Amino acid sequence: MSEINKVVLAYSGGLDTSVILKWLQDVYACEVVTFTADLGQGEEVEPARAKAKSLGIKEIYIDDLREEFARDFVFPMFRANTVYEGEYLLGTSIARPLIAKRLIEIANETGAAAIAHGATGKGNDQVRFELGAYALRPDIRIIAPWREWDLTSRQTLLAYAEKHGIPVEMKKGKASPYSMDANLLHISYEGRILEDPWAEPEEDMWRWTVSPEAAPDQASYLELTYSQGDIVAINDAAYTPAEVLEKLNKIAGDNGIGRLDIVENRYVGMKSRGCYETPAGTVMLKAHRAIESLTLDREVAHLKDELMPRYASLIYNGYWWSPERKMLQHMIDASQENVNGKVRLKLYKGNVIIVGRASDADSLFDASIATFEDDGGSYNQKDAEGFIKLNALRMRIAAAKQLRK
Amino acid sequence: MSEINKVVLAYSGGLDTSVILKWLQDVYACEVVTFTADLGQGEEVEPARAKAKSLGIKEIYIDDLREEFARDFVFPMFRANTVYEGEYLLGTSIARPLIAKRLIEIANETGAAAIAHGATGKGNDQVRFELGAYALRPDIRIIAPWREWDLTSRQTLLAYAEKHGIPVEMKKGKASPYSMDANLLHISYEGRILEDPWAEPEEDMWRWTVSPEAAPDQASYLELTYSQGDIVAINDAAYTPAEVLEKLNKIAGDNGIGRLDIVENRYVGMKSRGCYETPAGTVMLKAHRAIESLTLDREVAHLKDELMPRYASLIYNGYWWSPERKMLQHMIDASQENVNGKVRLKLYKGNVIIVGRASDADSLFDASIATFEDDGGSYNQKDAEGFIKLNALRMRIAAAKQLRK
Amino acid sequence: MSEINKVVLAYSGGLDTSVILKWLQDVYACEVVTFTADLGQGEEVEPARAKAKSLGIKEIYIDDLREEFARDFVFPMFRANTVYEGEYLLGTSIARPLIAKRLIEIANETGAAAIAHGATGKGNDQVRFELGAYALRPDIRIIAPWREWDLTSRQTLLAYAEKHGIPVEMKKGKASPYSMDANLLHISYEGRILEDPWAEPEEDMWRWTVSPEAAPDQASYLELTYSQGDIVAINDAAYTPAEVLEKLNKIAGDNGIGRLDIVENRYVGMKSRGCYETPAGTVMLKAHRAIESLTLDREVAHLKDELMPRYASLIYNGYWWSPERKMLQHMIDASQENVNGKVRLKLYKGNVIIVGRASDADSLFDASIATFEDDGGSYNQKDAEGFIKLNALRMRIAAAKQLRK
Amino acid sequence: MSEINKVVLAYSGGLDTSVILKWLQDVYACEVVTFTADLGQGEEVEPARAKAKSLGIKEIYIDDLREEFARDFVFPMFRANTVYEGEYLLGTSIARPLIAKRLIEIANETGAAAIAHGATGKGNDQVRFELGAYALRPDIRIIAPWREWDLTSRQTLLAYAEKHGIPVEMKKGKASPYSMDANLLHISYEGRILEDPWAEPEEDMWRWTVSPEAAPDQASYLELTYSQGDIVAINDAAYTPAEVLEKLNKIAGDNGIGRLDIVENRYVGMKSRGCYETPAGTVMLKAHRAIESLTLDREVAHLKDELMPRYASLIYNGYWWSPERKMLQHMIDASQENVNGKVRLKLYKGNVIIVGRASDADSLFDASIATFEDDGGSYNQKDAEGFIKLNALRMRIAAAKQLRK
Repeated sequence: MSEINKVVLAYSGGLDTSVILKWLQDVYACEVVTFTADLGQGEEVEPARAKAKSLGIKEIYIDDLREEFARDFVFPMFRANTVYEGEYLLGTSIARPLIAKRLIEIANETGAAAIAHGATGKGNDQVRFELGAYALRPDIRIIAPWREWDLTSRQTLLAYAEKHGIPVEMKKGKASPYSMDANLLHISYEGRILEDPWAEPEEDMWRWTVSPEAAPDQASYLELTYSQGDIVAINDAAYTPAEVLEKLNKIAGDNGIGRLDIVENRYVGMKSRGCYETPAGTVMLKAHRAIESLTLDREVAHLKDELMPRYASLIYNGYWWSPERKMLQHMIDASQENVNGKVRLKLYKGNVIIVGRASDADSLFDASIATFEDDGGSYNQKDAEGFIKLNALRMRIAAAKQLRK
Repeated sequence: MSEINKVVLAYSGGLDTSVILKWLQDVYACEVVTFTADLGQGEEVEPARAKAKSLGIKEIYIDDLREEFARDFVFPMFRANTVYEGEYLLGTSIARPLIAKRLIEIANETGAAAIAHGATGKGNDQVRFELGAYALRPDIRIIAPWREWDLTSRQTLLAYAEKHGIPVEMKKGKASPYSMDANLLHISYEGRILEDPWAEPEEDMWRWTVSPEAAPDQASYLELTYSQGDIVAINDAAYTPAEVLEKLNKIAGDNGIGRLDIVENRYVGMKSRGCYETPAGTVMLKAHRAIESLTLDREVAHLKDELMPRYASLIYNGYWWSPERKMLQHMIDASQENVNGKVRLKLYKGNVIIVGRASDADSLFDASIATFEDDGGSYNQKDAEGFIKLNALRMRIAAAKQLRK
Repeated sequence: MSEINKVVLAYSGGLDTSVILKWLQDVYACEVVTFTADLGQGEEVEPARAKAKSLGIKEIYIDDLREEFARDFVFPMFRANTVYEGEYLLGTSIARPLIAKRLIEIANETGAAAIAHGATGKGNDQVRFELGAYALRPDIRIIAPWREWDLTSRQTLLAYAEKHGIPVEMKKGKASPYSMDANLLHISYEGRILEDPWAEPEEDMWRWTVSPEAAPDQASYLELTYSQGDIVAINDAAYTPAEVLEKLNKIAGDNGIGRLDIVENRYVGMKSRGCYETPAGTVMLKAHRAIESLTLDREVAHLKDELMPRYASLIYNGYWWSPERKMLQHMIDASQENVNGKVRLKLYKGNVIIVGRASDADSLFDASIATFEDDGGSYNQKDAEGFIKLNALRMRIAAAKQLRK
Repeated sequence: MSEINKVVLAYSGGLDTSVILKWLQDVYACEVVTFTADLGQGEEVEPARAKAKSLGIKEIYIDDLREEFARDFVFPMFRANTVYEGEYLLGTSIARPLIAKRLIEIANETGAAAIAHGATGKGNDQVRFELGAYALRPDIRIIAPWREWDLTSRQTLLAYAEKHGIPVEMKKGKASPYSMDANLLHISYEGRILEDPWAEPEEDMWRWTVSPEAAPDQASYLELTYSQGDIVAINDAAYTPAEVLEKLNKIAGDNGIGRLDIVENRYVGMKSRGCYETPAGTVMLKAHRAIESLTLDREVAHLKDELMPRYASLIYNGYWWSPERKMLQHMIDASQENVNGKVRLKLYKGNVIIVGRASDADSLFDASIATFEDDGGSYNQKDAEGFIKLNALRMRIAAAKQLRK
C-alpha cells in the first residue's frame, strides 16, 4: 500500500466520507484531495470546504457540474427514451460517469496515483465509478474502503468518528433513515422498510414530489420545444439543459409526478428494492416519445426501441465510457436530426398526459393520407392487396405444404 | 368472379357491413354466411341475427368468443409486457387473429371459398385479417369491398343502402363521430378532430373511463394473484381470464385509468393518430412487470425486454399466426414458469401505483444479500473488486494502447 | 398513361431491354432516355450507344461507375462483415441502389417524369430499384414492363423483337442459359437446372473462378493493408477501391475461391436457388474479420455481429436509401476508426486461410496478459474468483430457492 | 479451509492434475475423489485409474460421456448454427458444462462439499466450470489451485512433482508444446509461437486434419439425413450422435477440412490467439444451414440469425446452465420441427461444398413460383407493385417533406 502518494476522494462532506477521509490518511498514510460536486442534489456544497480544511486537506475541489451533467449526460440519455427494466429512469447511474471523469481529471492535475469513493461492495455505484475510472486512466489505483475496512456496522463507524474527532451530525435537518442519492435528475431511496418488497413506502419518505392526492385539483398545461431531440424551451422561454431539469422538476413535482417504487436487478447479481423521484425525467420521457412519434421514421423508431434496453443496461451497469456505448450514441444522435417541434402536455395529480404535438418542418404525419375519409387519390387502396399477398406468400406456401402432408 | 359459391362475412350488424352483405350478394352473386362475434365490445350481438335474416342469410354464426379471446390471445400477449412503440397496448391488433381464425373455420365448415371483411385499404386491420386467413388456409379467396367498390364516400354508401332497403339507423344511442373498435381489452378512436395531432380530444369522446378529474378522491387498493404469468385471482377471488378483464376494466375505468392518445406508425406506411381506452390492460402491464421483477431472472427479463418490440410489431402488423410469432411465444411462455405470486396496487385518479409484491415460492429477492447493512457474510464484498477489474480489463488495455500512440 | 413525357430506362443493350425500349416508345408514346452503367460487369458498355441510337434515342447516358460503386457501396457494406442468411455476399443487392440513384439523377437532369427497368415482378431487383427511386424522388413514376405487358414468354418476346426490327443476337460469344447479373463484386446465376435444388451446377456455368480442382497446386500468399476498415493496399502497393476488387477477383478467382451455391429467401416471399461467384468478396470478408479480431473491442464486435443480419436484410431487401440503413451505417463507420493494420492470407484451391494479422498502432492483443505462462504480474488471477462469483450470484440465489421448494 | 471433507477433482491423469491431486491432499487435508471423462478426446482414460489409485484415491469415477456430450450438448448447439465471433465453433466451450454437471453429480453422490479443476485464472474454462457448478449446486465450494498456489512456473510445478513422487512423463508419445484441449468436437491449440498473431502455425501442430495440400486429389461425396435439425444418417446408414461426429471427423479430417486460426475475445477480458481443428463441426454447420435453407421459414431463419451471436456468447462465456440459455434453447428447438431432409456435400482439399438439398415432406422451395419463366399463374406479378408502393410510402412521405423545406 505504501506506493500511493496522493488520493482523490469523492467527498460529500457527510459522516461516511469524512470517516473515509481520515481512514485514508491513517491507513494509506497519503495526502488526500477532496472533490465535491454540485450535481443539483439540492444541498449546499460549500460546507464541504470547511469540513475538508478542518481535516487537514490542502487541495479541495468543489465544482458546479450541473450544466455539464444535464447537457452531456442526461440529455443524450433521454434521446434514446432510456428506461431500465421497463421502469427506472437511471437517475443515479447517469451521474456516476461524470464523477468518475472528474476524479480522473483531478488525479491527473494533482499528480495523484489513486482515487477513492464511498460506495459499498454490494451496489452498482462502485462498478460505475471504477469502470469509468479504468476506462479513462488504465493505471489508476482505486481504493474502495467499504470493501477493505472492518468498519462494517454503524456502531464501529461512529466509534471511529468519535475516536478521530470527526463531528457526527454534519447535516442540518432531520436525517433520513433511507440510503439516498440525489442529483438534478432524481432522488433515490433504499434500505430500511423498503427491504420488504411487500411494504408500501411511508408518505414522508418522499422529498421532491407531493402525493397525487395532495397535488392541485387544477391541471397545469405545458409546452415543450424540441431541437434535435433536446428540450430547448418551456412555454416558449429558452432554457439551458440544467434549467430545463430544474423547471420541470418543480412543476412536475408540484403535480405529484415522478414517483417510482420497484424491485430491480443490480449488476452485481442480486435484486434490490428502490424508490425514486424523477419528476422532470418522467415528463421528458413521455414528451420525447411524443415528438418522435411525429417526426421519426417508423423503422428508425423501432430499431431504437429494440436497442434501448441494451443501451439502458450499459448505463445502469457503468459502461458509459465504453466503446460500445459510444458507438450506440453515434447512432442515437444521428437519429435525432429531425426531432424538432413542440409537445403540449397536461400535468394532473401524477398523470403526464400528451394533448398535442406539432412540427412544421419535420412532421411526417400527413392527414390527407391517413384519413379514412376520401383522400383525393393520394393513396391507392388497391396497393394494399399486393402488399398483403406478397407478405403472406411464405406462409401460404408453408400452409399448402402442410396440407399436402 | 364467378367461381365464388359462398363467402363468409365478418358481420357486425351495422350499416357498413350490411351494405357489404348486400353488395356481395349483388356483385359476386354468391351466398353469404354471416359471422358475428362477441369479443366483449359491450354491444348486443343477437340483433345481428335478425338483421342478417332480413337480408336473406341462411347460415348465421353468432359466437361468444370472450373467454377464448382473453385466454388464448390477450393473456399470452401480456406475458411479454407487450407495448407497441412505447405506448400502445394492441387492443385492436390482438382481436384480429381470432376473427381470422373463426372466419376460416366457418368457411371450412360451410364449404365457402371466400371470406370478406369491412376493413378499409388504408388501415392495419385488412392486413391482420388477411395474413391470418392466408396462413390458416392458403387457398382462401378474400374480398375486401373497400378496396374494390366505388362506394368511397358516406353519401354513396347511404344512397346504396337506401336503394337496397337497408335500414340506416341500426344501432341505438348516439352515434359516435369517431371510427371506433371495441373488445374486452379496449376501445379505439380514430378520425375527425383526432386527425389534427395538435388537438386535444374532447372529453365526451371517452366511453369506458372517467377522467382522472372525475375519478373518486379515495384510492382503491387491489391484490392480483399470478400463476405462471397470468392473473388467476383478484382480491383472492378466482376469476377466468375474461372475468379478470371485465373486473379490472370496471375498477380501473372508474379510477380514470387507461386513456392513451398517440401518433402511431401503421404497417401500411403512414402515421395515424389514435386514442385508446385500455383500463384493465394498463393495470395488467404494470402489475405483470412487478411480479416479474421479483420472480424472473435478470438476464431472462432483459432478453424479453429486447425482443418485446419485435414481438409487439409482429402482433401489430398481423403476424400472430406466423411461425416467428409462435417461435417467440414458445420462449416467452417458457419464461413464465416461476412467475407466481401476488401484486398489490393502488389505483387513484389515473395512476396505477405498485405498493407491494410477494412470492413465497418463487421470489428471487433476498433481503439478507441485498441489504447495505450487515449481511452476516452471505455476500463477500471483496468479490466485487475482481468482478470490476475483469470487466474493465478490455477497456484498460485499449486505453493503455491509446496512451502509447 | 398519357402524362409521361419522358422515361429514363436502365438499358443494358441486350435483347430484353431493347424490347422494353421499343415497347415504351409504342405503349407510352414517350421519349426514352437510356442509361447504361459500367459497374465492372466485364462487358463493353459502348456498344449500347450504337444500339440505342439505332432505336432512335437522343439522350444516351453511359457511365463508368466502378469507383463509386466500390468506394461508396461495396466497401461500406464490408465494414459490417455483411452476409445474408449466413452465406450470400449481396453482390447484386449492393449494386441496385447506385443504379436507382443514377436513374433519378438523370431523370432530374433530363426532365423525365418516369424511370423504367427490366426486372421481373418475381424478383428482388424490382424492389431494390423502386424503393431506392421512391426514397430519392417521391413523385417519380416507375414503369416495370414485366409486370405490365403480355410478352410473358421467350417466344412472344422474340416475336415482338422480330416484328419491330430489334436484332436478336446482340451479344457476342456463347449465350448463357442462366439468368445472370455481374458487377465488380460478383456474378450471379439463376434458373434452368438450378431450379432443382438437388442438382449440382454444371462446371461450365462458372465464369470468374476456376474450380478448386483446376486451381494451382502452389498456394498464393497475400498481404492486405487496412485503414479504418477498408483495404488500401495489396502487398504494400496502394490501390483504389475498384482496383482492390479487380486485383482480388483475379488472384482469388485463379485460386478457385468464391463459389457459392444456395437456396435463399427472396423479399417477395418465395425461396429461390442461386449460384454466385464472389472471389474478392470472399477474401475480403475473411480478412476484415481478421483485422477486426485484433483491433476491435469485444463488445463493439459482438454488437456489430448481432446487428449484422438486420443490416444485411436491409440491403438485400432494397432499403439502402432508408433512414434506418443510414443510421446503422453511422454506427458501423464509427466502429472502424481503429481498424488499421495488416492481414496476411494464404489462398489455395478454394481456401482462404488467415496466417497472420498485425497492427502496430491499434492492436488490442497483449501477449503479456494473454499468456498462460508467467505474466510478471500484469493480470491478477485472483480477480477471476470475484468475477465468477458475482456473475454466478443470480443463478445461485435461484438454485437455492428451488432447493427450498 | 478446514471445513472441506472431500473434494471431487476433474482429473485427466496428466501431470498438472496429478500435482493438483497431491496438493489438495496436502493443503486441504481432505479426501479426493477423481473424475475422468471420455469425451472423445482420443486418449485412453483407463490409465487414469491406476494413476489415481497410486496416489491413494479410493473413489475413482471414469465415465464414457461421448453419447451424452454429442446428443445433449453438441447437437442442440448446432441447431442454432452457432459460431462465436464469426469463426469459432465452440468445441471447448460446449464440453465444460457437461463436466461441471458430472462434478456436481459426483459431489452429491459422494457427499463432497467441494470440487476442483485444473483451469488457470486467465482463461474461460474456469468460468465455464464454476458458473455451471454454482448454477447446479449453489452451496458448492470450488477450489481452483492455479488461482491459489505458488506453483506458477513450469519449474516449480516439476519440483513439486518430484518432491512428492509424482511420475513426470505420464503420457506416451511426443508431448505437444501447445496448451491443448480435445473432445469429439475439436482439438484446440494455444500458447507458444501462437502468442504472436502474425506467426503462421507450424504444420506439425495439427493432429486431426491433413493439410489441404496433403488431402486426396479426388473429392469425397457425402449425404447427410436430417431429422428435426439433427443428423441421423450418413449415406443412408443410421448413426448415433457420437458416431456421427466420429464418422464426420474422419472423412472431413482426411479431406483437409476444419482448421481454424483466430484471435478471439476471452470472457475475462483479453484477446487470445487460438488454433482449432473441428472437422465434423465444419461440415455440420454448412450442411445444417443448407437443410434449413430449404425447410425453414424466412423470418424464423432471420430471427435465429439475429439471436445466434448472443446464444454463442452465452455458451462461450459459460452460461449453458443459465435460465436465459435454456429459454433460447426452447425457441431454437421449436424452430427445428420441420428441418427434415437430405443434404449432399462434396468434400475436397479443405472445401465443404453443398451440391444438393432435398426434403420431400418439408421443402418450402416451390420451383413453380420461383421460376422467372412462365409459372402458369401461381404468382401474380402485379402484386409486387402494391407491395413496393406501401413499403416505400414512409420514405416517400419523408422525402416529400424534405423537398418542401
